[in-house]
Amino acid sequence: MSRSAALSASSAGAPLQPTTIERRELRDDDVLIDVKFAGICHSDIHQVREEWGAATFPMVPGHEIAGVVSAVGGKVTRYQVGDRVGVGCMVDSCGECEYCKDGEEQYCAKGAVMTYNGEGYDGEKTMGGYSQQLVVSERFAVRIPEGIELDEAAPLLCAGITTYSPLKRWGAGPGKRVAVIGLGGLGHMAVKLAVALGAEVSVLSRTLAKQEDGKRLGAGHYYATGDEGTMAALRSSFDLIINTVSADLPMDDYLALLRPLGALVNVGLPTKPYSVQPGSVVGGSRTLAGSTIGGIPQTQEMLDFCAQHGIGAEIEKIGADQVNEAYDRVVAGDVRYRFVIDTATINA
Amino acid sequence: MSRSAALSASSAGAPLQPTTIERRELRDDDVLIDVKFAGICHSDIHQVREEWGAATFPMVPGHEIAGVVSAVGGKVTRYQVGDRVGVGCMVDSCGECEYCKDGEEQYCAKGAVMTYNGEGYDGEKTMGGYSQQLVVSERFAVRIPEGIELDEAAPLLCAGITTYSPLKRWGAGPGKRVAVIGLGGLGHMAVKLAVALGAEVSVLSRTLAKQEDGKRLGAGHYYATGDEGTMAALRSSFDLIINTVSADLPMDDYLALLRPLGALVNVGLPTKPYSVQPGSVVGGSRTLAGSTIGGIPQTQEMLDFCAQHGIGAEIEKIGADQVNEAYDRVVAGDVRYRFVIDTATINA
Repeated sequence: MSRSAALSASSAGAPLQPTTIERRELRDDDVLIDVKFAGICHSDIHQVREEWGAATFPMVPGHEIAGVVSAVGGKVTRYQVGDRVGVGCMVDSCGECEYCKDGEEQYCAKGAVMTYNGEGYDGEKTMGGYSQQLVVSERFAVRIPEGIELDEAAPLLCAGITTYSPLKRWGAGPGKRVAVIGLGGLGHMAVKLAVALGAEVSVLSRTLAKQEDGKRLGAGHYYATGDEGTMAALRSSFDLIINTVSADLPMDDYLALLRPLGALVNVGLPTKPYSVQPGSVVGGSRTLAGSTIGGIPQTQEMLDFCAQHGIGAEIEKIGADQVNEAYDRVVAGDVRYRFVIDTATINA
Repeated sequence: MSRSAALSASSAGAPLQPTTIERRELRDDDVLIDVKFAGICHSDIHQVREEWGAATFPMVPGHEIAGVVSAVGGKVTRYQVGDRVGVGCMVDSCGECEYCKDGEEQYCAKGAVMTYNGEGYDGEKTMGGYSQQLVVSERFAVRIPEGIELDEAAPLLCAGITTYSPLKRWGAGPGKRVAVIGLGGLGHMAVKLAVALGAEVSVLSRTLAKQEDGKRLGAGHYYATGDEGTMAALRSSFDLIINTVSADLPMDDYLALLRPLGALVNVGLPTKPYSVQPGSVVGGSRTLAGSTIGGIPQTQEMLDFCAQHGIGAEIEKIGADQVNEAYDRVVAGDVRYRFVIDTATINA
């Protein structure tokens, strides 16, 4: 066992406070990671506040993790001490089902083990990346290529793969018109990735407040959906819409923005059911889809793609003592575009 | 101009009665078709009864049309007198937009001209296939290969293409588990086509009343969704579900039957909006889609596929004097599986 400084919530909604946790002895296939940076994902907040069903406390959140390998188990082959690695939303899966064999571990038939607020197959409660050390099977670590700073890499492990996966699956690329709803943590990554994939990218936001940022990130167009006439003017405009917001949007209005055969892909989780008129999908053979993270091979592919295109997240780096305030700012939408915790500042 | 015996409704909901209509002089690219058989599609009934918004009367329904070319315009190149041809839901489109150029005329930017209850680009009201003669541009006639009887071919022009198109788009084939909701006019075609495409096919019906038919058509499994426990037992079972019914189904329950990355494709038009929990599509990256008919090249492909696999519709052939009774039987679900009108029996 080893000990690690961490930020932990003692109960639902409690503030995150420095503490010390134990990490397991390295198994043969484990790597010990010195965590350098951990991104703050909105889902961290939902889970700490127990807004997504029963959670387990104490909880150490964090599934956007970037660090350096500091020790390896006896049979580790992929990584060496000193390698720059990342860990995302999963830390284990059965490895034997058709999904695991296909590198789509997120759909593991046995159920993938989540990085925190989860339970390993041995019953061990999982603790996430707001910590200085992490132990994980090498199968769930990905290599962070040179050329991406570790702090800007951390958010790629969730916000990056969550948007890269549907962009790839639904054909974002040259000649395709892609719209991104919401310019937040996920949305700003969707814009950068879609632009790098060669698509013509539009941002759909309630106001033009972040228009300058959107253009700087590569969006060719920026539309205020709250302005009268915007939605009507954009009918049948996009091949693909990535909806990154968790607000309850009128799906029929957004499906109408798709060209025939187009797809609207949701990566957020609003609280209410969508209401969808059958004609909104049958007419024009349109699609309402969802997407959840991505498998380990695709996560590596995404990191390599980001390195090749010079893409990292836009971040605001914070110390451990700013995390609770940062949570409130995320909920208020006041971050451009991802808070990243410098884990060296955790004083347990 | 030529004259044709036809079955016409004088006003919304009025019975269909024999009458005589005029067909236009052949244009250079037109063919005159001696209509032999016309299928009764449920959408005919919706339109005759004005259940789908304002309609134009008098109305001659019919968009599942099979017949023989009896004259050709001066510049017709594809067909000769005596050729066996079919006409489906469309009789014209702009021919110049990207969709028309792609052979996806149903999405024509100018709006495709519907076979009946529509208006040609010249303002002419369109009249459908419940008639003895039809004039149509050769671009909207498809060849009915030898090996399919004309009466069994007629329903392929709508029920066939409407199910073939999503089966192809969403990958029905060897190794894929396909479920078809509803064993009616569309559903029985979906089963035949999915089986011929090599998929493992299940029928999902409220009861087992048509189980024997379903198995005879090639379905490997037949499930009564009204039976307790059926839906729970089938969770995560299918790669693709084609929903052919127009009843208001609980979409979340059916989305749960999809495997990860699976798609539920609706081809019917229920009256109420779907209610879809965001997690039903985001979890497992599932898809709720719609599909509407198919383009002319794919309609020809479907007919050729049917000929190759010995597929026709299962029909009940009727005379013109049985059409109104047949409408009531379609609404009651009392047909196995498509009524086809022998147009020779229209005595105008």
